[in-house]
Amino acid sequence: MFNDILNDDFSSTKGPKAIPVTLSTRIRLARNLREFPFPGRAETSQRRAVLTKCMEAMHDIKDLDSSYAVEVDDLSELERQILVEKHLISRELSDVDEASGIILSKDRNCCIMINEEDHLRIQVLQPGLNFSKVWKRVDALDSNIESEVSYAYDGDLGFLTACPTNLGTGMRASVMMHLPGLVMSKNMDKVVNAVNQLGFAVRGLFGEGSDASGSIFQISNQQTLGESEGAIIERLDKTLQNLVRQEEFARKKLLQDDGRRLIDKVSRAIGSLKSCHLIQSAEAMDLLSLIRLAADFKMLPDSYRSTADRMFIEIQPGHVQLAAGKPVEPDDRDYLRASLLRQKFAKAPFVKTDG
Amino acid sequence: MFNDILNDDFSSTKGPKAIPVTLSTRIRLARNLREFPFPGRAETSQRRAVLTKCMEAMHDIKDLDSSYAVEVDDLSELERQILVEKHLISRELSDVDEASGIILSKDRNCCIMINEEDHLRIQVLQPGLNFSKVWKRVDALDSNIESEVSYAYDGDLGFLTACPTNLGTGMRASVMMHLPGLVMSKNMDKVVNAVNQLGFAVRGLFGEGSDASGSIFQISNQQTLGESEGAIIERLDKTLQNLVRQEEFARKKLLQDDGRRLIDKVSRAIGSLKSCHLIQSAEAMDLLSLIRLAADFKMLPDSYRSTADRMFIEIQPGHVQLAAGKPVEPDDRDYLRASLLRQKFAKAPFVKTDG
Repeated sequence: MFNDILNDDFSSTKGPKAIPVTLSTRIRLARNLREFPFPGRAETSQRRAVLTKCMEAMHDIKDLDSSYAVEVDDLSELERQILVEKHLISRELSDVDEASGIILSKDRNCCIMINEEDHLRIQVLQPGLNFSKVWKRVDALDSNIESEVSYAYDGDLGFLTACPTNLGTGMRASVMMHLPGLVMSKNMDKVVNAVNQLGFAVRGLFGEGSDASGSIFQISNQQTLGESEGAIIERLDKTLQNLVRQEEFARKKLLQDDGRRLIDKVSRAIGSLKSCHLIQSAEAMDLLSLIRLAADFKMLPDSYRSTADRMFIEIQPGHVQLAAGKPVEPDDRDYLRASLLRQKFAKAPFVKTDG
Repeated sequence: MFNDILNDDFSSTKGPKAIPVTLSTRIRLARNLREFPFPGRAETSQRRAVLTKCMEAMHDIKDLDSSYAVEVDDLSELERQILVEKHLISRELSDVDEASGIILSKDRNCCIMINEEDHLRIQVLQPGLNFSKVWKRVDALDSNIESEVSYAYDGDLGFLTACPTNLGTGMRASVMMHLPGLVMSKNMDKVVNAVNQLGFAVRGLFGEGSDASGSIFQISNQQTLGESEGAIIERLDKTLQNLVRQEEFARKKLLQDDGRRLIDKVSRAIGSLKSCHLIQSAEAMDLLSLIRLAADFKMLPDSYRSTADRMFIEIQPGHVQLAAGKPVEPDDRDYLRASLLRQKFAKAPFVKTDG
């Protein structure tokens, strides 16, 4: 049954259609049970008690699907990798040895991790930019769980968390953004600095320490203390909307100042995807980034934006092995990845220009 | 009328079909008139006298077409460049100011330069590897001219030339070879060393000082003294046949050891040629080299070998401007070059593989 989750392509088929610049919105809440030590300081038996208690508390929550509840130990290495690549669980949880678990929602846009760094990490993901919808859902989940368990909460500090960087709201709100215009115009460093100054972090597609292949960046709040959830989200939302405008401006300028070079890049990306027989993830992501951009520029049909978003996930090493039905060495993965991409872009039209 | 020469695509339509590895054979003879100083030491009036005398001497030679006799001064810069790119005249001749000329054969495989470094440079070019045919023709031309003028010749030294490196036979025999197998397998340095040791020189597509874009190399004799023309050609021919075998072996080994990577390269080259909107000559030549290789490997129809050979010339800066009908800046040339290549390769099939 768990195979359904692995094989399902839910990153793009559910929810609104893929839109330019903003790929997805995510909010996660860190919560801990009052009567147990944080996972990092707990005995295995205590961790197991937390796991059982949480699973029971969530069993009847309507938004969740208890048949998609699973212990991390029961997942193979490949299955864990797949979930990481789908942004459903963290790399940290995938490395945990014992007494950790996950539960998914029916539409698979929510995933709750148990005994990661905190007892509970409640997260909701949604394509596009839509904080209010995502907040409503994560807040409802949080309330439902709280009606069954007792959270560690301090009147002054707010929610208590294993790491002080999460103290207070325990909330991390983030958006995945596609910023090729800012990257190509070499403005990204400046933008990262400005965004950091506002108290927000900028990371790559796979979070902390990952690189920005495909010009995809994850932007999130760093502060969790001393500000309400609503205030944090409002500030972040404003910053992101400004960022969208900057990206749009950068794209327009690139097209005006050196349109031919841009068209050359986009068109060659299509050519490479149609013709490659060996390709590594990083190059594939950079090509897919150009496909997304081409769709935004109306150089390719809109549907290729969603195709690119789906491929960003499906070309990852775990997904390539899942599709092959077996573990595959890196060289052979590059070959299978190329076959997949050739097939997906076989019918993509080349960019046409007049002059 | 001279426009006919410029526009004609005679590098590939005349003579035998393009074959693997060996692009063309060339022999040129350096000759000087006994009664005049070498061009570099001559007064303009003397150079002009040489030009007139030579043009008259060649006027009635059947193999030549006196209506294609022209003074270099009368050619525009672009026209000179075109002739260099077609390998009909040397860069040196194209830079000469006064009293130099050329005369072409009817089939345009012969070009005689007057007042380049020597009074006469008689050269015959032919697609494929065929020294005997080329020698026969250049030898006949030489005899015909000698019946009209008196060559500077010494019983001990042979033909006297402006530069001692041409003394004796005055002959430079060369072959243009396509050696991507030896380049990709990183054996080219070793091969160049070995070939040098045998007294032969290895240069790029446009002779001395040009680089080896497109994996095309020109191999020629360095010695002209102390050996008969026949002996030089025989030694060179043997060396070249050995080189062809080494290239074939390198290709077979590449295909065996890392066939996927080779197929990836070739297939992506097709993709790039179908999709580029800006491209410089050097990259274009490297892509065309892979097209030629693909035809040799039967990954593309045979006709693409000739297309590649034709394009090697037509993508050169002068030819791109000729096609545009006006002088064009480098950036715009890259754009026009890309348009030409996209059009030529629009229908090229992608490489198919089973596994």
